[in-house]
Amino acid sequence: MAKTRVGIINVTGYAGVELARILCQHPKVQLTSVTGRSAAGQVLDDFFPHLKGAGLNIEARLGEVDVAFSAMPHKESARELLPLIEDGLKIIDISADFRLKDPEEYPQWYGFTHPAPNLLTKAVYGLPELHRDVIKKAHLVANPGCYPTGAILALAPAVKEGLIDPDIIIDSKSGVSGAGRSLSLTTHYAEANEDTTAYALSGHRHMPEIAQELQMLYPGAPLAITFIPHLTPMTRGILTTAYAPLVKGKLADGEKGEEELLELYRDFYNDEPFVNVVTSPPHTKHTWGSNYCHIYATIDHRTGRLIAISAIDNLVKGAAGQAVQNMNLMLGMPETTGLESLAICP
Amino acid sequence: MAKTRVGIINVTGYAGVELARILCQHPKVQLTSVTGRSAAGQVLDDFFPHLKGAGLNIEARLGEVDVAFSAMPHKESARELLPLIEDGLKIIDISADFRLKDPEEYPQWYGFTHPAPNLLTKAVYGLPELHRDVIKKAHLVANPGCYPTGAILALAPAVKEGLIDPDIIIDSKSGVSGAGRSLSLTTHYAEANEDTTAYALSGHRHMPEIAQELQMLYPGAPLAITFIPHLTPMTRGILTTAYAPLVKGKLADGEKGEEELLELYRDFYNDEPFVNVVTSPPHTKHTWGSNYCHIYATIDHRTGRLIAISAIDNLVKGAAGQAVQNMNLMLGMPETTGLESLAICP
Amino acid sequence: MAKTRVGIINVTGYAGVELARILCQHPKVQLTSVTGRSAAGQVLDDFFPHLKGAGLNIEARLGEVDVAFSAMPHKESARELLPLIEDGLKIIDISADFRLKDPEEYPQWYGFTHPAPNLLTKAVYGLPELHRDVIKKAHLVANPGCYPTGAILALAPAVKEGLIDPDIIIDSKSGVSGAGRSLSLTTHYAEANEDTTAYALSGHRHMPEIAQELQMLYPGAPLAITFIPHLTPMTRGILTTAYAPLVKGKLADGEKGEEELLELYRDFYNDEPFVNVVTSPPHTKHTWGSNYCHIYATIDHRTGRLIAISAIDNLVKGAAGQAVQNMNLMLGMPETTGLESLAICP
Amino acid sequence: MAKTRVGIINVTGYAGVELARILCQHPKVQLTSVTGRSAAGQVLDDFFPHLKGAGLNIEARLGEVDVAFSAMPHKESARELLPLIEDGLKIIDISADFRLKDPEEYPQWYGFTHPAPNLLTKAVYGLPELHRDVIKKAHLVANPGCYPTGAILALAPAVKEGLIDPDIIIDSKSGVSGAGRSLSLTTHYAEANEDTTAYALSGHRHMPEIAQELQMLYPGAPLAITFIPHLTPMTRGILTTAYAPLVKGKLADGEKGEEELLELYRDFYNDEPFVNVVTSPPHTKHTWGSNYCHIYATIDHRTGRLIAISAIDNLVKGAAGQAVQNMNLMLGMPETTGLESLAICP
Repeated sequence: MAKTRVGIINVTGYAGVELARILCQHPKVQLTSVTGRSAAGQVLDDFFPHLKGAGLNIEARLGEVDVAFSAMPHKESARELLPLIEDGLKIIDISADFRLKDPEEYPQWYGFTHPAPNLLTKAVYGLPELHRDVIKKAHLVANPGCYPTGAILALAPAVKEGLIDPDIIIDSKSGVSGAGRSLSLTTHYAEANEDTTAYALSGHRHMPEIAQELQMLYPGAPLAITFIPHLTPMTRGILTTAYAPLVKGKLADGEKGEEELLELYRDFYNDEPFVNVVTSPPHTKHTWGSNYCHIYATIDHRTGRLIAISAIDNLVKGAAGQAVQNMNLMLGMPETTGLESLAICP
Repeated sequence: MAKTRVGIINVTGYAGVELARILCQHPKVQLTSVTGRSAAGQVLDDFFPHLKGAGLNIEARLGEVDVAFSAMPHKESARELLPLIEDGLKIIDISADFRLKDPEEYPQWYGFTHPAPNLLTKAVYGLPELHRDVIKKAHLVANPGCYPTGAILALAPAVKEGLIDPDIIIDSKSGVSGAGRSLSLTTHYAEANEDTTAYALSGHRHMPEIAQELQMLYPGAPLAITFIPHLTPMTRGILTTAYAPLVKGKLADGEKGEEELLELYRDFYNDEPFVNVVTSPPHTKHTWGSNYCHIYATIDHRTGRLIAISAIDNLVKGAAGQAVQNMNLMLGMPETTGLESLAICP
Repeated sequence: MAKTRVGIINVTGYAGVELARILCQHPKVQLTSVTGRSAAGQVLDDFFPHLKGAGLNIEARLGEVDVAFSAMPHKESARELLPLIEDGLKIIDISADFRLKDPEEYPQWYGFTHPAPNLLTKAVYGLPELHRDVIKKAHLVANPGCYPTGAILALAPAVKEGLIDPDIIIDSKSGVSGAGRSLSLTTHYAEANEDTTAYALSGHRHMPEIAQELQMLYPGAPLAITFIPHLTPMTRGILTTAYAPLVKGKLADGEKGEEELLELYRDFYNDEPFVNVVTSPPHTKHTWGSNYCHIYATIDHRTGRLIAISAIDNLVKGAAGQAVQNMNLMLGMPETTGLESLAICP
Repeated sequence: MAKTRVGIINVTGYAGVELARILCQHPKVQLTSVTGRSAAGQVLDDFFPHLKGAGLNIEARLGEVDVAFSAMPHKESARELLPLIEDGLKIIDISADFRLKDPEEYPQWYGFTHPAPNLLTKAVYGLPELHRDVIKKAHLVANPGCYPTGAILALAPAVKEGLIDPDIIIDSKSGVSGAGRSLSLTTHYAEANEDTTAYALSGHRHMPEIAQELQMLYPGAPLAITFIPHLTPMTRGILTTAYAPLVKGKLADGEKGEEELLELYRDFYNDEPFVNVVTSPPHTKHTWGSNYCHIYATIDHRTGRLIAISAIDNLVKGAAGQAVQNMNLMLGMPETTGLESLAICP
C-alpha cells in the first residue's frame, strides 16, 4: 500500500530540517517534497549533511502531497497555506498564523491583519495533551510555539484543578536554536556563548498563546500572566519555571502536600506517551533530541507557592516532534509512530 | 612606606584564586601569604598557571598579615578565623559564617551551631551599596553570597522605596563556577554542558541572607520571598530576574512609569562606582571578569508587576571583587582601587 | 521467536549508558541484564532519566544472556570476561583488553600483565570496515577505541593503496565525554569550558592500537606515527586531522589529483553503510548521536602532503554504536539494525 | 604633560573593541577618537556596554591623533591609512595590508593589487619577540595575524637554532571570535556550538605570513609548511600544535633531550615579558583576556619529532594586545604598559 505522501514548506530553517530528520525516518509516511527559497535546486542532504541518504531535491514549490507541514515565518505561512487548505490537504502549520482564536491579536502581537480570520475557529491548537480528540478530526492544526508547549504543560494540571490563584509568573530559559537559523548578532556565537539574558520584556509573541490555552482551563476569572523568556548558551532545550500562589486548603500541609501535588500531576498525564512527571527538578539535557517533556511540581512552603518546572527540546516537542505527533493523530496512526527515540545524553 | 600585608586562607578554590588574581595586581596592598590544604608546599603560579609571576608559596598556615580573607567552606571558616579575630586582624570572610544575624539560622540552614554567636552582631554584612559606612569601621566583614549580591541589588531600590508589595519571586541563573572547584557530577563537563536545571527547590542557603537584607529595607511587614536558583552552561555569571507586584499609584501609567522607575533606580545607585543602571535587559557577558553589576528595572503593565534584573560575575562582584571592595573601604582607600578593570567581552 | 538476550557489564559509565540507549531501542535483541557497581539495586531509568521506560534494574552480577558487552575499565574487563568467554557467550569488549595482538604491549601501555595472552590472537579487532568477515565468525570482539576508529578510518585507504610514505601525524580533537563519567579536574565544567589543550604527549594508550591496524595495511616498512590527542569544549565528537607525505607520481597534479584521491576513498568505502566520504571538511556536529563517520581527504599541493580528516561521535561510532554494529555482524543480522538513526543537528 | 592621543579606525569589530578596552585603561596614552561606519554617531559605551565609562562618541572620521590603529578589513585598511602615513602619524595596522614583504602575494592571497608596494619594505612586522629593535623606530607597524602569532612563537626557537628539518606541520585550533563580528552561518551559535571542523584546506591567508617570518629565521633552505586551521567551540583562544622532524644529534637522547629543548626555549624567550615557557601542555584558558603566550616544546621519541605547542588569546596577544605592545615600543614606553593584566581563569 502506498504510504501517505508528506511535504515540508521551507525545510531550510531549524524547524524545517528537524521535521525532515524525523519524517525521513518515519515508518508510515513518505517525505516526498520539500521546499526552500534560496536553497531551491540543491540536494537536501548536501545542504544538511547530517540527513545523509534523504535523497530529495529542495524545490521552489511543493509537489503533490497528502499532508503539508509549513515551517514558514508567520504571515507568509498563512498566505502560502490558504490554497492548500482549499485543496483539502491536511495541514500542520508550525508558524503562529493559526494559533490564536481572536483575530484582533494578530495586528497587536504580529503586526499584520489576518488574511482568513474565519479559519481561526476551524484551526485546532495542536497540543495533544489538551486537544487530542479534535486534533484527530482536524484538517488544519496550528502547532504550538516552543515556549507555550513547555509553559502550558507545566501549568495545565494545577490550573485545571483550580489549585492556584490566577496570578502566574513564567520564567523560561531557552537554548539559542529557538531563535532560528537566520543570522543575527544575538545568535552570533561570540555574543551568545557564556551569556544569559532576558528579552522581550515588553511582551513576547508567545504570551497570548499561553494565555489563551491556560484561560480555557480556568473559566472562572481572568488570569494575570507574566512571561519572561531568557536566552542561555546551549543549542537546544527550554526549561520553564512557573510560579503561582496555591489556593489554601486544597493540598495537605508539608511533605504530604507535595506528594498530593505530584500525584495530581501524574494522574493528569497518566496516559500521555510523551510527558514524564519526574520526582526531582528536570534537566533539559534529559530531553535532547527527543519528543519527551519532563515535568516536576513542588511547593514553596514558606510562601505557599506552586513551583512547576518543565523541560523540553525546543526543536522536537517544542516544534517538529509535536508536529509529527499531530500528523500521526490526524492520520489515525499510533501517536508515537516515528517519535519513540530516547533522548541522547550526555 | 610598607604596603599593608594581606593573606588568603584557602587560595585553592575559585573564590580564593580569584582573590589572588585581584590582590596580586592591587597597587596598594601586598599579598604576602596564601594557604591551601592539599596544595601546601606548591608554588602558587605552578598550581594556577594564569597567575604567572605571583611568586608565592602555598602554605599550610597563614603568615603574619594585617588583613585576612577567608575562602574556607562554611563552618570551617569561623573556626579558622576566631583566633585571628582575637588577634585584631581585619577580616573579610567569604564564607557564610558571619552573614546571618540570627544564630538560630545556622543550625537550620547550615547544619551547625555557631561557635561565636556574639560575633554575629559585630560582623558587618559586606554589601557596600547598603552598608558602606559601617564597613569602613568594621573589623569583621561577612562578604555576601553570589546570589544575594545579585538579588539584593536588583530589588533594594524598589523595596526601600515601598514600590512593591511584600511578595517577591527571585529566579536566578548561575554559571557553573558558582558550584566551586570541588568535583561533583553536577559540575562534570558532559553533564553540565548543554543543560539548564533548577535546584535547591526546598530552600537554598542563600535564601535567609536575601531575606535578612531586604527585610531591613522594609520594616513594615514580613516579606514573602521565593528564591529558585538555576544552573546554566556558562563558566561565570549570574542573571537574576526578580518579580513583585507594584503598589498601585506609586508610578505613573504606561511608559512614563517605566521612566520613573529607572530614574528611581538611577538615583538610588547614583554614586555607586560598581552599579550601572542600564536601559535594556543586562547580559552576564557584559560583566565578565569585572566588579560591575548591571541592573535593569521595568514594568509588566498587563499584570502591574515589577521586573528587576541584575547581571554580575559571580566570582568578582559575587565573591572576590566585592571582598576587595570591602577591604578597600576597611583600609580607608578609594573603594575602586585594584578593581577598575573593565569586563572582557566578547 | 525469543529475541537474543543481551547484557551490559558496567552500564553506569558513558559507553555503558550509550549502549543501553541503543540496545533498548534495538528491534531484534532484548536487553535483559545490566550491571553496575555502586549503582546496583537502582532502577536504570531512575539513574539515567533519559532512558525512561527502559524498565530494568541495575544488578551486581550479570544475569543469563547470550551476548555480553563489557564497558568495564581495562584490566578489570578481562578479569570479568574470562569466565563468560569460557561459557561460550558472544562477547564485545569495549575496553582495551583484547585489542592489542602483542601481549608485551599491555605492561608497557596499560601497566598490567595480560591474564590470558592466548586469547589475544583469537579476539577480533572490531572495526567492521577492515575486519567484517572475521567479526561475523568471532566469539570475542575487541571494540576499537574512539581515537583509533577516527584515525584508522581516515587513513586506511591511503595507507592500503600505498599513497603515502610511512610517516604519519595524527592530530585529534575530542569532546570531553571521551574522558568518561568519572570525576576529574580535567573534566570539571569550569576548567574544560572555553579551553583547548593537548595531552598525553609522551604517548596515549590508543597509539599502539592505531599503529597495529595501520601497519597491517602496510606490510612493507615500519610506520612512524605521531598521535597527539586534544581536548576541546564540546560534549561529543572527535575530529581527526591526519597528515602524511604523498608518494610522488601516484596521483595526478592539481585538482585532478584531489579528485582521484576522493574517488579512491569513495571506492574504498563504497559499500560501507556508516562511512560517508564527503566533499568538504567534515563537522563533528554532523555525526552527533549517530553511528556515521564522515571522511574527507585532500592534498596540500605546496608540500605534497595528504590531509585526511574524519569526524565521528566518540560515544557512538567511537564506542557503543560500533559495538552494536559488531554484535549485529556476530549474530548474522543486517549490520545497520538499530543503528540507522540520523545525526541530530543542530 | 599631555598624554599621547591615540585613535582607532573601525572600533566596532572584535579587534577594534578589544583595542578600545585596553586603551581606555592604558595609563600613558589617551584614547581620543574612534570611528565606525554604521555605528557612527552612537556613544561607544552604549554600543559596547562592557566599556562603561569610556565616554567617547563613535565618529565617521578619525579626529586628530598622534597614533592610529586600524582595525579595518584588509584592502580597505591600506586605502584608509595611506593619507595618515603621509601625515607622519605612527600607525599600527591590525589588518594584513602591510604584513607581507612581497607585493605579489597580495593578489594571490588577498585578491587585490597592493596600492603602495613601496611601503611594504618600510613597514615592520610587529612581532616584538622577533623584531623589537626595528619596531621601536618604526612609523608603520603591521600587526601579526592571530594564527601567525601563535605559530611563529611556537616554532621560532627551534627554527632559528636549526633543530628541525624544513618540513613543518602546523595544526591550529581557534575560538570563534577569530572569525570576527560579521555574521555568518559558520559563526551562528547553533552551528558552531558543539562542533569542531577544519577549514581553508586549500590555503589560509595567514600561511604566507607564517612562511615569511619563519623563513627569515632559516636562511639555508626553503621551508615546506602545511598550516591547517580549525574552529572549536570557544569564544577566545588559539592552541597551535606544530610538528617537525628533529635534526639528529642536536639534542640528547631521552628525557635529557626534552630538558635541553625546554632550556633552549627558555633561553630564547628569557627576557620576553609576555612569553611563558611552561613545563606541561598549555591551556588556552590560562591566557584568557591576557597578552601572554604560553609555549611548551617536547619530543616524540618514537619518531624523532619536535612537538611545539602555544596558547594565546586570539584577541589580545593575537590582535589588540600585541598592537598596544607595539605602540608602547614605538612610543618609547615600557613595553608592558597597560598590558600587565593576568588572565582571568576559570
